[in-house]
Amino acid sequence: MTWSPIELVSKKLKGREDVINFASGAPDPKLIPVEDINKALHEIIEEDIEGALEYPGTGGLAELRKEIREYLEFLGVSTSRKEIIITAGAQHALNIIANMFLNEEDLFVAENPTFIEAFLALKHYTPRYRAVRVDDKGMVTGELEKIVKEENVKLVYTIPTAHNPTGTIMSYERRKQLIEICSRGNIIIVEDDPYRPIVDSKIEPLTNMDKDGIVVYVGSFSKIIAPGLRIGYILVSRELVEKIEQLQQLDFATSTLSMHIMLKLFKYKTPYKAMKQVSREYTERIKLLLDLLEDHMPPNTEWTKPKGGFYVLLRTDNLNMTKLLDYALREGVAYVPAQLFYIEKPDPRTARLSISRVNKEEIEKGVKILSNIVKQYSA
Amino acid sequence: MTWSPIELVSKKLKGREDVINFASGAPDPKLIPVEDINKALHEIIEEDIEGALEYPGTGGLAELRKEIREYLEFLGVSTSRKEIIITAGAQHALNIIANMFLNEEDLFVAENPTFIEAFLALKHYTPRYRAVRVDDKGMVTGELEKIVKEENVKLVYTIPTAHNPTGTIMSYERRKQLIEICSRGNIIIVEDDPYRPIVDSKIEPLTNMDKDGIVVYVGSFSKIIAPGLRIGYILVSRELVEKIEQLQQLDFATSTLSMHIMLKLFKYKTPYKAMKQVSREYTERIKLLLDLLEDHMPPNTEWTKPKGGFYVLLRTDNLNMTKLLDYALREGVAYVPAQLFYIEKPDPRTARLSISRVNKEEIEKGVKILSNIVKQYSA
Repeated sequence: MTWSPIELVSKKLKGREDVINFASGAPDPKLIPVEDINKALHEIIEEDIEGALEYPGTGGLAELRKEIREYLEFLGVSTSRKEIIITAGAQHALNIIANMFLNEEDLFVAENPTFIEAFLALKHYTPRYRAVRVDDKGMVTGELEKIVKEENVKLVYTIPTAHNPTGTIMSYERRKQLIEICSRGNIIIVEDDPYRPIVDSKIEPLTNMDKDGIVVYVGSFSKIIAPGLRIGYILVSRELVEKIEQLQQLDFATSTLSMHIMLKLFKYKTPYKAMKQVSREYTERIKLLLDLLEDHMPPNTEWTKPKGGFYVLLRTDNLNMTKLLDYALREGVAYVPAQLFYIEKPDPRTARLSISRVNKEEIEKGVKILSNIVKQYSA
Repeated sequence: MTWSPIELVSKKLKGREDVINFASGAPDPKLIPVEDINKALHEIIEEDIEGALEYPGTGGLAELRKEIREYLEFLGVSTSRKEIIITAGAQHALNIIANMFLNEEDLFVAENPTFIEAFLALKHYTPRYRAVRVDDKGMVTGELEKIVKEENVKLVYTIPTAHNPTGTIMSYERRKQLIEICSRGNIIIVEDDPYRPIVDSKIEPLTNMDKDGIVVYVGSFSKIIAPGLRIGYILVSRELVEKIEQLQQLDFATSTLSMHIMLKLFKYKTPYKAMKQVSREYTERIKLLLDLLEDHMPPNTEWTKPKGGFYVLLRTDNLNMTKLLDYALREGVAYVPAQLFYIEKPDPRTARLSISRVNKEEIEKGVKILSNIVKQYSA
């Protein structure tokens, strides 16, 4: 095990509130639906605080599972012939899934670059993996097809919608190809989809195209409600439910209180209301960031052009963005060096910029500082 | 993976509120310090609800770690040269520890019988284990010594204080022997100690006798505060801290809100106050149960004689207590068939009786029903 680059930068940032934070992928605390959470807590205190403080058991509260099912349908995620299991956040879900499917001799495939914390969880169970490139249409499925011909692939991990760290949305064509390749090879697809509620696109999730029960879909309320509650979920074919619940016995980590809070929030329709507000705000920020990069960055600097989500991947002409981080911090701006998101051929010229913790003024100021650094060091 | 017997019985008990519940090892909801938790929630809402809803990071809130250190010292657990790490409950802690120390070829030792949910977590990482008997002085260290001579043991799992399911407290002599054997062999001891705050005994924990940093100590607030918060902790030598924190990146499961609640409760001294109240009540119940068993059980029925904790292990002369469970449920009393707590030579004549969810009247009524069943079927 090593530290994820996100944790590393967040350790460096501790106590540095003066810095413009393009590093954090955590949602803006100002966008947390605090009033509704307060109301939920008050009602839980009055009605059934004891019930909210009992052992969680496995699988999660039945009523909350039902609410999440409706919520997913609203998001365009078909839940027919599948079941919901509640977890202590999406990362906890990914760890359970990795633990379930991957043995030491198994091989998995992930996008390159990819969300490194999920990758570390997968790699914890097997050292064997292959990387597939991401371009502006998402995972390059042609590369996957080649790998599948050469190797016995057990599982493919993908973030098809608002990919981390590139922000890319996988095209419909690529999605269809990915499903076809994996159906033929009986390969599990882990569809990590935390950004769907904040992305203004009704693009079909992979799980909807899944006729063989090979897609394990993972989501979370961290981006639209609050990450500190640690509530995520798995949507999975019925045959796998019991096995996942048995794996939950290993840690019983899901907070009962958090599940009761989420259940209350669903009674108030908070996830639906929050989603609208929050996605509008984040989408505006991404647009602003893209416009400002266009205005200020020197030529030969490239970046991805996401329609939503949190991230833009920036690539400089020839600067080592990992080495430049400490200087950038001194100048008052933070990012995550994206080199460490690469699981193959790390590209030190890249940086992940996130808009989740910066307001519009900060984006404006931050891009100017960053472009000055890039210009200064490129010269 | 299989279902733990505790989960199995709890599934059978769903909706059966008429049954006298000697099965559950969950604390009595009536003993949860509800008023203090309510106060904590109100104060968190007013002061820093956003902070309580952020990502947890690894290791846990620094302030809470400090409070837990003081609390452990108060409990007679020396924290010098060791560090605290906060987890999503003790089971989550045990899973992280098992994941860290056990590889597929490693061999671990556990008591027979033992807390089966912890055992399942250990066994998930390696199928290789050996069992050591528990008698009225705790783990029979002579048996461990023999195993250590024959095999390369990596880790010993023990619940020395108010053992689950026998209720036994390991004697001081045995504790010293256990430490000596493991120090010589450089064997990790996992000391699972959730009952210390409710047991009226200042017997020295193994971690206090640990000169070589081989004891990993695990505790929880589930028994004196509330299990639904999912807050536990690991006390471990400093060299292991970073590795454990890196493993926490795999799931990031600890609820930030729950940590903030616990921190507030420490400000009010709730754990100290709750501990006193709760341990008095549970100790009275255990005494009552032992007296009633003495009065009502037929000859040739035996049981352990714990001084505290939740559990008594009952052994009938020749009845299959696993098969009798459904009948007992119809008669209005539930227990956990203890056969499944045995990791070797399962004894179907045994039952685990817990006093955590039954009041004094229920204990009286329940023992009568149970003794009638035993008499009827023994005849």
